[in-house]
Amino acid sequence: MIKKLVPVGLSNRHVHLSQAHIDVLFGKGYELTKFKDLSQPGQFACNEKIDVVGRKGKLTMRVLGPARGNSQIEISVTDGFALGVNPPVRDSGNLADSPGGKLVGPKGEVEITEGIIAAARHIHMHTADAEKYNVKDKEYVSVRVTGERGLVFENVLCRVSPSYALEFHLDIDEGNASGLKNGVEVEII
Amino acid sequence: MIKKLVPVGLSNRHVHLSQAHIDVLFGKGYELTKFKDLSQPGQFACNEKIDVVGRKGKLTMRVLGPARGNSQIEISVTDGFALGVNPPVRDSGNLADSPGGKLVGPKGEVEITEGIIAAARHIHMHTADAEKYNVKDKEYVSVRVTGERGLVFENVLCRVSPSYALEFHLDIDEGNASGLKNGVEVEII
Repeated sequence: MIKKLVPVGLSNRHVHLSQAHIDVLFGKGYELTKFKDLSQPGQFACNEKIDVVGRKGKLTMRVLGPARGNSQIEISVTDGFALGVNPPVRDSGNLADSPGGKLVGPKGEVEITEGIIAAARHIHMHTADAEKYNVKDKEYVSVRVTGERGLVFENVLCRVSPSYALEFHLDIDEGNASGLKNGVEVEII
Repeated sequence: MIKKLVPVGLSNRHVHLSQAHIDVLFGKGYELTKFKDLSQPGQFACNEKIDVVGRKGKLTMRVLGPARGNSQIEISVTDGFALGVNPPVRDSGNLADSPGGKLVGPKGEVEITEGIIAAARHIHMHTADAEKYNVKDKEYVSVRVTGERGLVFENVLCRVSPSYALEFHLDIDEGNASGLKNGVEVEII
């Protein structure tokens, strides 16, 4: 049987912005500029950064492009302590009843009423990888991490699309807890 | 078969100090004062706090008593980023070749050459619990955490002594990554 290996991508805190919010934060009609491509096709880290302000503090975060339908701020639970915000663990796009905060850019600021989450860990899979690994879209799998902080992540959502590249996304808390670094390969069991 | 349940104790960053270092930081012959008892018999959180200074920053940490043979600074990997220190994952007391830093108290400061670690997760067990759970001192077990961030921690060291109380110790990164809170019961599997 083949080993179902997946490279790790650790997500530091970042924001996705709607064009309406980009207009407020950076100026009407502003277009995000690319800092570097990300491993998921079409996704890129921007040169632009903003401040996210909570009840207790603020954190500077990089914007990821392209613009999305809704702004979404992805932080770790640790970041939440610094901000004074308790982020629910959510799949991307599921923002109902999540906490909001203030977004501050160079040209303006906006108060959002929801959108701050801790992203639920997940695996992006190209359709060909899913076929090879015998995994379906929206299936949950377990992933083993070896080493001194070895553990098995359960409840890992697989998201399959011809526009995805194979990668296991988890946040900095999860990376630190398991001793993982970017690019290390872990195994679906 | 009985369920082998263990209550969780999350360890935030803290320091254990030698009497020699207490003398420097708080004054010759100073005795630590109790803020509150911890769950492990004889161990207590102190009213005293010190600053730990690394290459990039400093963090204020509570002192735990009583005094120990060697000073030991326990931080998370996340704390390590703030300090500019890369803590190795170690069992308590195993400090060889760990990084040092500057300790700053109200009466003085001291440069330590080693002693900063990320504590390896472990279970304290009273001898009676170990017998009931059929676990030996220094045995490694796996622990399942349920819930949306459910996972199985592997390589969990059991430490058995008649002077211990049953408790699974892990750091804040590990607690955030698994969604655990103090006092929640998890299961040895």
